[in-house]
Formats: sequence, structure tokens, C-alpha cells
Amino acid sequence: MLKKNYKEVKEQEAVLADGTKAEGIYIRWLIDENVGAKNFAMRRVEIKPDLKVPLHNHAEEHEIFILSGTGKFYNDKEKVEIVKEGDFVYIPSNEKHSIENIGEDNLIFLCLIPYLK
Amino acid sequence: MLKKNYKEVKEQEAVLADGTKAEGIYIRWLIDENVGAKNFAMRRVEIKPDLKVPLHNHAEEHEIFILSGTGKFYNDKEKVEIVKEGDFVYIPSNEKHSIENIGEDNLIFLCLIPYLK
Repeated sequence: MLKKNYKEVKEQEAVLADGTKAEGIYIRWLIDENVGAKNFAMRRVEIKPDLKVPLHNHAEEHEIFILSGTGKFYNDKEKVEIVKEGDFVYIPSNEKHSIENIGEDNLIFLCLIPYLK
Repeated sequence: MLKKNYKEVKEQEAVLADGTKAEGIYIRWLIDENVGAKNFAMRRVEIKPDLKVPLHNHAEEHEIFILSGTGKFYNDKEKVEIVKEGDFVYIPSNEKHSIENIGEDNLIFLCLIPYLK
């Protein structure tokens, strides 16, 4: 059994699909292979106001739970969802998605991904 | 992309390892095979004060994030952890574990498990 607080985990600037660092978007890998997780990873993501993760896709599905703030999720098929604390989002494998902070505070959520085998 | 609030998901009384229902311990399966999740499931668990999930184990590892309340996690090897909002816990496959609400409010956390193949 391993227990920590998220603040004990180093915050990293997120890296976008094109390899550039995303200024103002931070990720903490809370539970991953480094602590022995074999099937999926738990990350905590924080996006500053007016910033977004641009449309991108990948094989890993996302299981997301909103901790605080207000965000807009959308894909490339005119699907748009406004999210707040207590909402959860499932993004299937390979679906294009963008995540934008549309509130005045940081948008904070957990985002879990599988280790594909 | 699927988005919902946790309140839209029906709350069920948890079922303990011996098959009995655990009065005062509630589980919501937020993201699971019913919405297409292929690798792991996200559940939201709520435990009323003074109640606990007794020591048990199973092949599925747990990835847990505490949303609110105060809890005590322990195993059968004298490991004890007190948890509060913002803490996370990793419980490896087959490790015995118990989760107890030691606060005055409900203990609420996300608990994710893999679909073992």
C-alpha cells in the first residue's frame, strides 16, 4: 500500500502531441509504473484560465473526473460538453478531443489512461 | 465522448467479499463496460461515519483518490495510513486492505480497478 498527497508529486509542464511544452498546463503522474501500477495510470492535470489542450487523439482512452473549475470538452464532430466539479468524461480510443479552461479559476481534473499491451 | 455528473449514476449498496450488502457503504460505477470502457473502471465510493470495508483482497489492484472526509486505510502487515482530500492510495494486486471512515462526515473517494484479461 502506497499513500501520498498530490502535492508530494512533482508538477511537470504538459507536452503536446507535436512535442512542444504546453505553458500553463501542468501534469502530475500520481500513480504509474514507478509505483508498480500494471494496468493504468492516474494523472492530475491543472490548466490555467484561457488555455487549452488543442484537438489531438491517441490510442489510449481517457477516464476523467473534474475536481474543480469550469471546462469545455469538444471533439471534431460538433460534440461540446461544459464540465464542472463532480462531472466525469469518457473519451474512447482514438477520438479527437480538446480540453479548454473557460472559467476564472484553474481547471483541475484527474485523467486516467491505460497501459496498452 | 460521454459526459455525465456522478449524481446521474444510480447509487448501489456495496457488496462485501462474503456476498453480504454493506449497509451505509455506497458505490456508483461512473465509467465501466456499459459506456465502452475496455481497460479499467471508475467508481465513486461513499462510506458513512464509523463504518468500514473489512479486510479483504482480490486480484484487481486499486487506484484511489480521496475527494472528501477522513479515512484510515490499513493492511494485515501493520501498515496504517490516514487519508484526507487530495491524497491518493495505490493498493497492489492481492494485498489485503481495509478502509474505514474515522471522520464526522462521509468519506468519499474514487476507486479504479482494471478489467483483468
